[in-house]
Amino acid sequence: MQLRDLREQVLDANLELVRKGLVLYTFGNASGIDRERGLVAIKPSGVDYERLTVEDLVIVDLSGQILEGTLNPSSDVKTHLLLYREFPSIGGVVHTHSEFATGWAQAGKAIPCYGTTHADYFHGEVPVTRPLTDEEIEADYEFNTGVVIAARFKHLDPLAVPGVLVANHAPFAWGKTAAGAAYNAVVLEYVAKLAFRTVLIKGEAATVSSRLLRKHYERKHGPKATYGQKQGE
Amino acid sequence: MQLRDLREQVLDANLELVRKGLVLYTFGNASGIDRERGLVAIKPSGVDYERLTVEDLVIVDLSGQILEGTLNPSSDVKTHLLLYREFPSIGGVVHTHSEFATGWAQAGKAIPCYGTTHADYFHGEVPVTRPLTDEEIEADYEFNTGVVIAARFKHLDPLAVPGVLVANHAPFAWGKTAAGAAYNAVVLEYVAKLAFRTVLIKGEAATVSSRLLRKHYERKHGPKATYGQKQGE
Amino acid sequence: MQLRDLREQVLDANLELVRKGLVLYTFGNASGIDRERGLVAIKPSGVDYERLTVEDLVIVDLSGQILEGTLNPSSDVKTHLLLYREFPSIGGVVHTHSEFATGWAQAGKAIPCYGTTHADYFHGEVPVTRPLTDEEIEADYEFNTGVVIAARFKHLDPLAVPGVLVANHAPFAWGKTAAGAAYNAVVLEYVAKLAFRTVLIKGEAATVSSRLLRKHYERKHGPKATYGQKQGE
Amino acid sequence: MQLRDLREQVLDANLELVRKGLVLYTFGNASGIDRERGLVAIKPSGVDYERLTVEDLVIVDLSGQILEGTLNPSSDVKTHLLLYREFPSIGGVVHTHSEFATGWAQAGKAIPCYGTTHADYFHGEVPVTRPLTDEEIEADYEFNTGVVIAARFKHLDPLAVPGVLVANHAPFAWGKTAAGAAYNAVVLEYVAKLAFRTVLIKGEAATVSSRLLRKHYERKHGPKATYGQKQGE
Repeated sequence: MQLRDLREQVLDANLELVRKGLVLYTFGNASGIDRERGLVAIKPSGVDYERLTVEDLVIVDLSGQILEGTLNPSSDVKTHLLLYREFPSIGGVVHTHSEFATGWAQAGKAIPCYGTTHADYFHGEVPVTRPLTDEEIEADYEFNTGVVIAARFKHLDPLAVPGVLVANHAPFAWGKTAAGAAYNAVVLEYVAKLAFRTVLIKGEAATVSSRLLRKHYERKHGPKATYGQKQGE
Repeated sequence: MQLRDLREQVLDANLELVRKGLVLYTFGNASGIDRERGLVAIKPSGVDYERLTVEDLVIVDLSGQILEGTLNPSSDVKTHLLLYREFPSIGGVVHTHSEFATGWAQAGKAIPCYGTTHADYFHGEVPVTRPLTDEEIEADYEFNTGVVIAARFKHLDPLAVPGVLVANHAPFAWGKTAAGAAYNAVVLEYVAKLAFRTVLIKGEAATVSSRLLRKHYERKHGPKATYGQKQGE
Repeated sequence: MQLRDLREQVLDANLELVRKGLVLYTFGNASGIDRERGLVAIKPSGVDYERLTVEDLVIVDLSGQILEGTLNPSSDVKTHLLLYREFPSIGGVVHTHSEFATGWAQAGKAIPCYGTTHADYFHGEVPVTRPLTDEEIEADYEFNTGVVIAARFKHLDPLAVPGVLVANHAPFAWGKTAAGAAYNAVVLEYVAKLAFRTVLIKGEAATVSSRLLRKHYERKHGPKATYGQKQGE
Repeated sequence: MQLRDLREQVLDANLELVRKGLVLYTFGNASGIDRERGLVAIKPSGVDYERLTVEDLVIVDLSGQILEGTLNPSSDVKTHLLLYREFPSIGGVVHTHSEFATGWAQAGKAIPCYGTTHADYFHGEVPVTRPLTDEEIEADYEFNTGVVIAARFKHLDPLAVPGVLVANHAPFAWGKTAAGAAYNAVVLEYVAKLAFRTVLIKGEAATVSSRLLRKHYERKHGPKATYGQKQGE
């Protein structure tokens, strides 16, 4: 069995989604990539998290060819692979139907940056894609789900905005590693929940100032980060 | 004791409702049918889930005659039996007063298909029945609850839309087996929760396109299913 | 130590509030009465539920005199005692600040009967008291809290409507026993939650018909009850 | 290692935030002060609660100099210190991004006193600060967060109103001890949740009368307190 370390990281990223209440039954999947070898480990399709093992994970290359594994990969594998190809800086991808983020995705609305919890992790709104056209749905649906995400990020840095809402569908999140992707998916759900409460209390809530956004983002990220125990963590 | 396998499946379907937080106290019931013998195993009325055993389950035939069991069957048994008679393709029925689905039922509103989570399991909106008339309530209430459900499904395939909201009451769900019925009841509650969040974020949220509805439904169901490890699961 | 059975029932009623998530810290209290002897066992004030024992419970007579116990009784003891004097049919009283029922109480609105879950336990709306006057607050606050509840029930049967919302405050519930009072407090919170969801989905939701209200109430209560294993339970 | 008692109290206050569901990952921090020695124990920045020990806590003086500890203190340490300097009556400070209180903070709205749960602990609304100016964000952000809190409390007693919402950010709470600060943070979140429900049920809900506010506050605080087992607790 190849890539044991990567498999263990990806397994733990999948289980973190369960621990944090982001998945019902099998509604979600996490993957991670070994950039040097160009290989991705991803959750198999429709397998219960409770009995998921490192051996169950499927290894595919960036073209989607299965190199190791007897199970089918997640039905969303083509979306994951497109994101790895389009966003060279990322090392992990997570997809969930988590409750609040999916509420925003179904409403077709980006999550405005209403506060510093959001600004700590997302440099600006959590964007929403355009809906897929009938042709895109028909032709190669999961691939085209990745296409509309990549199109939305044409002018965005995927590490500064590590997640997106697919319209009428649900969130994808990513990060430098599979663990980071899971962490960002959890934070995205939390930010979606806070924003839901905010708009219900006061629909016309003002978003944070651009200065406050930058301040909080830079406290946690980049050369001037002051949060935590290691610079730039 | 007859039908041990069926009893065990029905017991587990009842307990799944507890594990997933769909029932408070004794507010819910699951049943399953042995189609060859025409016998139904159903939860007894008002018995705590914590002490429910396979022996407690009540065996009735499709006319409602009790064939095995010393306890009264669920007070909703006539609704279950009517559904088994009207929908020959189903093998299990579940009734709950789960929180969000009941919110929609009490509002008298069908749950629109706002996203792919919904489309994965329900081929279109989750319909709502008309209210029962005073005469229907008076004459044979539980039987007539089944009548208004069956009337609502006159032009619907119960396996393509495996659940319904009874107006002013609560949801019923069903499936090919008792386990499938419980699973669909859990998904129905999740879909009701997502739709609640969606309408509060954006009341006029657009529903999914008919093409996206079909695509997601077919990914999980029928000859072209690609989800999971077995075709057509 | 007197009244061990009553003490054990009252202790368990208090703990049921914790098990069902109705209390934060010490925000709540349950009591029970021995009608033959005219003695009430009630939770002491401000004692953590985790370390509450039968010995900690305080025994008072209906005039409020402490007969057994070294701790102060709940600060709401005068409200409990007034309810026992005004409602001779009840055997237990519970007060909580549970999340959804308190939301309705703070809004100063009765909970309309939107569905059969409600109709199963409350024969009509869960009423709300008028606010206390400044004089009532000043003079004998906890006693007068009972006075406004009793005034609201002048034309209601407390066993048919086993709970109330005190305006700007929170719910009280009661029952034939301390266990029944705790059960009704849990159901009241559930009904308040369902109604909250219902009004947010459709503000102008219709309440149940008087016929459906009677049908569901009578399925669970009185000589024609068909729910559960014992008639009239 | 100095100040073992204070360290243990501060550690437990931090863990209480976890037990009560107020923190996700490392989003929160608690501190406590030894007034005689002028020393503060505070959570280190970005350390998981699960592996937090008394040794990890950082000891700083009121000017912010680190006297003991190898880890960086919480990035919010300057806010804590300013509050200790400005509010001589307090002995503990807590900062969280708890779900409902942060919803109100992001909406930029004070939490009105809608009921007695609130009045029991906060003598009037939970106030909200003004937003920080761009200059305040740029110059010394965490210090200036304390400045806008102190400015908002110019005419308020911090022990009578033991918490605040920082606009676009999240709540701070405090108390006579670190344990009291954590307790007040938990109650603030509960009050924020009740108020959220109240405004959704009835946007124009009336707040409690000034007499009821005083009555409930005085039941739990000051020389006339009647709640609990010890006067004036």
